[in-house]
Amino acid sequence: MTDRIPAAILGATGMVGQRFIQLLEHHPLFRIGAVLASARSAGKTYAEATNWVLDTPMPASVHAMVLLEPDALPPCEWVFSALPGSLAGPVETRLAADGHLVCSNASAHRMDPLVPLIIPEVNGDHLEILPRQRQVKGWEGTLITAPNCTTTVLALALKPLHDAFRIESMHAVSMQGLSGAGYPGVPALDIIDNILPYIKGEEEKLVDETRKLLGTVGANGIAAAAFAASAQCNRVPVREGHFICANIRFARKPSVDEVIAALERFEAPAVAGLPSAPPRPVLVTRDPARPQPRLDRAAGGGMSVTVGRVQRSGTADIRLVALGHNTLRGAAGGALLNGEWLLKVLKA
Amino acid sequence: MTDRIPAAILGATGMVGQRFIQLLEHHPLFRIGAVLASARSAGKTYAEATNWVLDTPMPASVHAMVLLEPDALPPCEWVFSALPGSLAGPVETRLAADGHLVCSNASAHRMDPLVPLIIPEVNGDHLEILPRQRQVKGWEGTLITAPNCTTTVLALALKPLHDAFRIESMHAVSMQGLSGAGYPGVPALDIIDNILPYIKGEEEKLVDETRKLLGTVGANGIAAAAFAASAQCNRVPVREGHFICANIRFARKPSVDEVIAALERFEAPAVAGLPSAPPRPVLVTRDPARPQPRLDRAAGGGMSVTVGRVQRSGTADIRLVALGHNTLRGAAGGALLNGEWLLKVLKA
Amino acid sequence: MTDRIPAAILGATGMVGQRFIQLLEHHPLFRIGAVLASARSAGKTYAEATNWVLDTPMPASVHAMVLLEPDALPPCEWVFSALPGSLAGPVETRLAADGHLVCSNASAHRMDPLVPLIIPEVNGDHLEILPRQRQVKGWEGTLITAPNCTTTVLALALKPLHDAFRIESMHAVSMQGLSGAGYPGVPALDIIDNILPYIKGEEEKLVDETRKLLGTVGANGIAAAAFAASAQCNRVPVREGHFICANIRFARKPSVDEVIAALERFEAPAVAGLPSAPPRPVLVTRDPARPQPRLDRAAGGGMSVTVGRVQRSGTADIRLVALGHNTLRGAAGGALLNGEWLLKVLKA
Amino acid sequence: MTDRIPAAILGATGMVGQRFIQLLEHHPLFRIGAVLASARSAGKTYAEATNWVLDTPMPASVHAMVLLEPDALPPCEWVFSALPGSLAGPVETRLAADGHLVCSNASAHRMDPLVPLIIPEVNGDHLEILPRQRQVKGWEGTLITAPNCTTTVLALALKPLHDAFRIESMHAVSMQGLSGAGYPGVPALDIIDNILPYIKGEEEKLVDETRKLLGTVGANGIAAAAFAASAQCNRVPVREGHFICANIRFARKPSVDEVIAALERFEAPAVAGLPSAPPRPVLVTRDPARPQPRLDRAAGGGMSVTVGRVQRSGTADIRLVALGHNTLRGAAGGALLNGEWLLKVLKA
Repeated sequence: MTDRIPAAILGATGMVGQRFIQLLEHHPLFRIGAVLASARSAGKTYAEATNWVLDTPMPASVHAMVLLEPDALPPCEWVFSALPGSLAGPVETRLAADGHLVCSNASAHRMDPLVPLIIPEVNGDHLEILPRQRQVKGWEGTLITAPNCTTTVLALALKPLHDAFRIESMHAVSMQGLSGAGYPGVPALDIIDNILPYIKGEEEKLVDETRKLLGTVGANGIAAAAFAASAQCNRVPVREGHFICANIRFARKPSVDEVIAALERFEAPAVAGLPSAPPRPVLVTRDPARPQPRLDRAAGGGMSVTVGRVQRSGTADIRLVALGHNTLRGAAGGALLNGEWLLKVLKA
Repeated sequence: MTDRIPAAILGATGMVGQRFIQLLEHHPLFRIGAVLASARSAGKTYAEATNWVLDTPMPASVHAMVLLEPDALPPCEWVFSALPGSLAGPVETRLAADGHLVCSNASAHRMDPLVPLIIPEVNGDHLEILPRQRQVKGWEGTLITAPNCTTTVLALALKPLHDAFRIESMHAVSMQGLSGAGYPGVPALDIIDNILPYIKGEEEKLVDETRKLLGTVGANGIAAAAFAASAQCNRVPVREGHFICANIRFARKPSVDEVIAALERFEAPAVAGLPSAPPRPVLVTRDPARPQPRLDRAAGGGMSVTVGRVQRSGTADIRLVALGHNTLRGAAGGALLNGEWLLKVLKA
Repeated sequence: MTDRIPAAILGATGMVGQRFIQLLEHHPLFRIGAVLASARSAGKTYAEATNWVLDTPMPASVHAMVLLEPDALPPCEWVFSALPGSLAGPVETRLAADGHLVCSNASAHRMDPLVPLIIPEVNGDHLEILPRQRQVKGWEGTLITAPNCTTTVLALALKPLHDAFRIESMHAVSMQGLSGAGYPGVPALDIIDNILPYIKGEEEKLVDETRKLLGTVGANGIAAAAFAASAQCNRVPVREGHFICANIRFARKPSVDEVIAALERFEAPAVAGLPSAPPRPVLVTRDPARPQPRLDRAAGGGMSVTVGRVQRSGTADIRLVALGHNTLRGAAGGALLNGEWLLKVLKA
Repeated sequence: MTDRIPAAILGATGMVGQRFIQLLEHHPLFRIGAVLASARSAGKTYAEATNWVLDTPMPASVHAMVLLEPDALPPCEWVFSALPGSLAGPVETRLAADGHLVCSNASAHRMDPLVPLIIPEVNGDHLEILPRQRQVKGWEGTLITAPNCTTTVLALALKPLHDAFRIESMHAVSMQGLSGAGYPGVPALDIIDNILPYIKGEEEKLVDETRKLLGTVGANGIAAAAFAASAQCNRVPVREGHFICANIRFARKPSVDEVIAALERFEAPAVAGLPSAPPRPVLVTRDPARPQPRLDRAAGGGMSVTVGRVQRSGTADIRLVALGHNTLRGAAGGALLNGEWLLKVLKA
């Protein structure tokens, strides 16, 4: 692995940044080229500045790496960004303008019609917009984004159904794990024996990003799919895993068996061979008591979404439950897979 | 309180039975006349046979009461039944036939068109069917039932909206507390850091019972309301409180403010004065972060439902969140309020 | 209650401050005279500045009270302090010097030999030091302190045993509830499915404060009891309640029955009539499965400590478990009871 | 791995049985030769009869294996027993008598002086008693046992300290994970937001088994070590991992550094190469906030114990915290390592 491509990690000390570190340690294509953090942490070693919260130990290789300020990026062409949405905007723009290939997990640019919002198995072809992105923006480099964690889980489940039966209307209710709020995130006193019915901005993101992911590339950018959508998003006392109940109306009325068949047929051969891609993007369970966060979030190395409880709905056509890992597929793992996909497309 | 009416408690040692014991201790109209349990426990004292799980101590008055077998009911006219649904059927039928006034929390008879399924503030007038019940069934006594715990919370929230705007379609996703599964109920290993997407029979009950509660009394029994309905029911790591996300389409299209106004206007004066009735059956919160099980389940002594997050829906007209206490309003408290209501109606 | 004494609350917006507000709302002797907070919150109303986290609603009477800066204390003679230990030192000194009667829950002055560290039922007589406090310190007013939350629970359990059998050695292992860390306190990701073996300063406080509480008033101040002591303090996923396993060696070797008898005999008649005092400071349970935080923390209105599992120890004489409510008896309730006691002593 | 030794699993459907299945799937020395369960399950396939609760999927190789009754053991010489203690006694005796090599995790025979209670790194030499066991008992086969889960964690931490400094007195307070109670085990309503201070028989086992493990082989069987010991055992809301606070007095007074050095030096070269043996039986952490169940239970593949917070004790010499995985090292993993060790000794 001596020829691995160095990549800089923006926001390296946070929870998503830690996942990038964890995932890149033994990655076959990329290695950690630099770790960046806020001015407050810059100059410290990664081990000094980081409250490591993952279950696996901090990789020895990053202990002594010195954190750089965002302005001090070394000549790493590739950048993975785990910055908070509120900080990512101008930093990522500047890096893309300066020639970097930025794969971001931040929300700042997700809804820009010239910035692809990508799940490779869902809309890997949206990278077609990149030449136009560079032209219109005048950037030397490029910027692609990964969706919100809840959106990622939902969109993977919906993609084969939209292709096969065309969604007309989709209502989603989420029960989201705690790691989705980052660290320190949710106080224990707020969530043990409780549910929080409000996650700022989440319901809007789930609706808007899902429609963009299932949309199409047009002359002026990416056009969102036009179906009706609504969402109710909740935080629950679960460590990891986002669980979504969806109620869906389709243009072409499928049976339960046809829905299951479409989900089981779903594959993305060009993506499946990438290092972070799971064997299958969506798994289907017929066990009425599944999916469950604890038992199913790690499916496919945390990169597969599990769909279950596919049933007829008395108010739409089909109701189902989708579950995925929010900090693997839904954050660092998703952004890393985007990087692998971009690398493959650029080389092609 | 010397003239309180003695009432027998069926299934007195279980979790709902314990709530009956707790609520009747200082009740102004009823007192505990007898405690009944399975043959296995009969002959033991209540204290010997009961694994008391409530946060308040077991009332001293029941410690030494001897548990009777279901067949050995003393001449208590009034009976509150906390039997499991699978056992309640023939027992409750026989008691009603023999002249008892049975207020049941069990599911066995809920969907019988001649047995009122009652929430007094929602459909207290369904007691009109009782003369016909006795006539057709040939019973000396009578039987009324309280709904499933989740249904109770939902139906209270929907009642004023159905009256004002007529529901055409309603989809509900529940997150249900652990006490709803009784004791011992859900193993800790199954639910800590987890969600269970399946509660046997719950989705059907939530749909069917809600429509019956919002239905009307006809010549041949109670006719369910005709709107489309569907449900997805889940168990979450919350001790008490059932939390429901609902997405609703109405015949008459209300604004968010009109929905809130209808909820805030909702009252049932004939019921409000009963001992177990809360000042208001439904409370509305405008705090975007409410309702929460921990903060709101005890509202109105556990007998009020709290509705919040009333918003426009992109797929229906209105989405909202409703929360209520599942073992108070949703079980023993609800059945006890039914008894108070039946007593008032019989006296009138 | 028109003649209630106004009292200022320092640190009124935090978790302990909220408990003061809650407890003073219907208090017969004191009322809320002023609410103080940091400069950042000063000028806002209490409702604006406070993230209310208690299960009961914020009292209406404080909603509109304007928060004052610590320097802007109005002429309230009585002050209850819920300041963080790191801020309390100079503020409380100045207030005591200026003539206020300060009942503090903060750690800053607890170990000062001229400042009584008080649990009224344990060492109410330590107020004898107050004349000397005023003389040596040159204060117009006075300052008394309440112990650390874990210490309070332990010291109440140990007091009758030390009196009866004289402790020679005491080892305590605590399992402490989350509210003891304040709000926001412990991140949910740190504690769900976990134990934290370290609470800064807690092991030292538990040892030092317990010995001071069981000590005696001497010419130069309060002298700590001399027994050997050690502690291991842990945070566990429990909302409220501090649970302590203690292993104790005595000078006079008691039997298990003698220990139970001494605990059951324990009373403090001069204190028992005060508004915040429970009927009995210590309750003893013989149920081998008790005490449990959920079932026993509210005993005596949260002001009684429950002791159970009193058994012979293979390494000392007696081992037992003690449990108490950390934000009631262990914080605001304890400091308020101190105020009631000081008021009674001053009036006597 | 065609020559792997077939082994029968007794109690194969329970939680410890599932761990045996999981661990044997890819084991280099043993394979699953037969699965046994109670008469109620016998005749069903493993997949039909088992409520699989582990996070990894049930191995495909056992799905279709038919469960046998305990009496129907096929000619598998090796047997791993995960029977409940109450059932294991006569079954295991009969199997050993009939020529089987029984490695048991059950408590039934642990305290028999002729039955080795083994942790290979602690007292692997206790197998010396086996010839005498066969002679006195008249068995064709043999029986060895693994300790209680909590004892295993404690004894590994104590072994190097007893060797180096000789323990005179040891008091342990445990906080035990839920999986230790098996499945269904502890009801969620009993443990969420709670601690249970009582685990039947656990305090006695922890004292008695620890002393036997640190004892010596004599003419008439294994003689327990003679130090004073006591224990207080508690269940806490943690999924997996047993956490122990210990307070220890030694004959030779070590410094904190000497204790840490003895722990760090601890190794068992003859054992370390076995398939289930971790690189080091005990790991030491100097991080004051460790060990934590969530972060440290999986150390060494769940087979290493982590010791931390080594400090001077005000009541003994040293206090420390030890943590280990209760269903890996403390149950199936420990019994499997015992099998590997017995195999090695028999071959030598």
